[in-house]
Amino acid sequence: MHSIVSFTLVPINSGLSLSPYVAACSRVLKRSNLKHELHANGTNIEGPWNDIFEVIGQCQQKVHDMGAERIFTTIQVGTRTDKQQRMSDKTESVTRLLDAEQ
Amino acid sequence: MHSIVSFTLVPINSGLSLSPYVAACSRVLKRSNLKHELHANGTNIEGPWNDIFEVIGQCQQKVHDMGAERIFTTIQVGTRTDKQQRMSDKTESVTRLLDAEQ
Amino acid sequence: MHSIVSFTLVPINSGLSLSPYVAACSRVLKRSNLKHELHANGTNIEGPWNDIFEVIGQCQQKVHDMGAERIFTTIQVGTRTDKQQRMSDKTESVTRLLDAEQ
Amino acid sequence: MHSIVSFTLVPINSGLSLSPYVAACSRVLKRSNLKHELHANGTNIEGPWNDIFEVIGQCQQKVHDMGAERIFTTIQVGTRTDKQQRMSDKTESVTRLLDAEQ
Repeated sequence: MHSIVSFTLVPINSGLSLSPYVAACSRVLKRSNLKHELHANGTNIEGPWNDIFEVIGQCQQKVHDMGAERIFTTIQVGTRTDKQQRMSDKTESVTRLLDAEQ
Repeated sequence: MHSIVSFTLVPINSGLSLSPYVAACSRVLKRSNLKHELHANGTNIEGPWNDIFEVIGQCQQKVHDMGAERIFTTIQVGTRTDKQQRMSDKTESVTRLLDAEQ
Repeated sequence: MHSIVSFTLVPINSGLSLSPYVAACSRVLKRSNLKHELHANGTNIEGPWNDIFEVIGQCQQKVHDMGAERIFTTIQVGTRTDKQQRMSDKTESVTRLLDAEQ
Repeated sequence: MHSIVSFTLVPINSGLSLSPYVAACSRVLKRSNLKHELHANGTNIEGPWNDIFEVIGQCQQKVHDMGAERIFTTIQVGTRTDKQQRMSDKTESVTRLLDAEQ
């Protein structure tokens, strides 16, 4: 199942700055070769279901290894069987509609 | 990684009533032998990371097989390394605090 | 807009145990007179849109007042115009389907 | 409370293409004068708590007015009292860490 995902990993009780953990997770994602992009409230990623949840699990494990004792992660997943869709298609189709009316 | 999860699977464009899909997913969970319980806005489930995301993937696939062409699923996952925690511990510790003050 | 909501409030950098914050929030909810119930991964609540987000904001403020400097909250909201639905209806309709087939 | 939010509005049973609804919601956000930006899995927005939930409520109402009878919306909110943070700060601090190590 091709999946388009946004996820946000929140280490609890590991300081107020979360950016070192997000950066560590970005490095894990980079090694995975899955398409991904950071946004202000999480990371978007796309690929096969199993690969995605394996790599998010590796991020979770990595952040535990950095010393975080408790982690709270939220994940949104979209799958569809009617057509192949890419992350970039999603913003483009909205932008096209907004541009058309101006 | 022992994980405590809440997830909500939303078939898009498959009718206004989602209960047949939730029921089908409950049957998948039942076969998994993972501890789980339904609540008004999703299903709580606990167990090893890989088992959980495999079974949520089976739910997602099952709902596609029932005819849903597009599905949006949200997942919250908690993991911790400081202690073993069960789903039931979480509500109990809050209830204990609330009872203590009355 | 009548809304059925699940929310989870996570104080960051305020200790590993979150139950004191969840209990404080339960007290805020109790004063609100909105129907609510705790589950293992959050709190379900139902009522008018504005009342719900006002009371979740009061929880958020309360937890800041208790010393939490950073909070991450996730919220799921369902609204529908085809019929009046209550939280209890949602689990009941699934349970009915599961019972029927046994 | 200054809040940084990501939200995703999902109309149920209103067709497989959600972009017309996302575009309608973008127009509502534009009128609000709150800083916002679309990403592949939702919309990021920042501003005062009350303003944000009022405008998300207006989106929800707008999508109902377009004919969607049932809507499922997920929202992630971050608030902090230790410093003023903007959406752009969040990705920048991660990017800075990743660049520094190369």
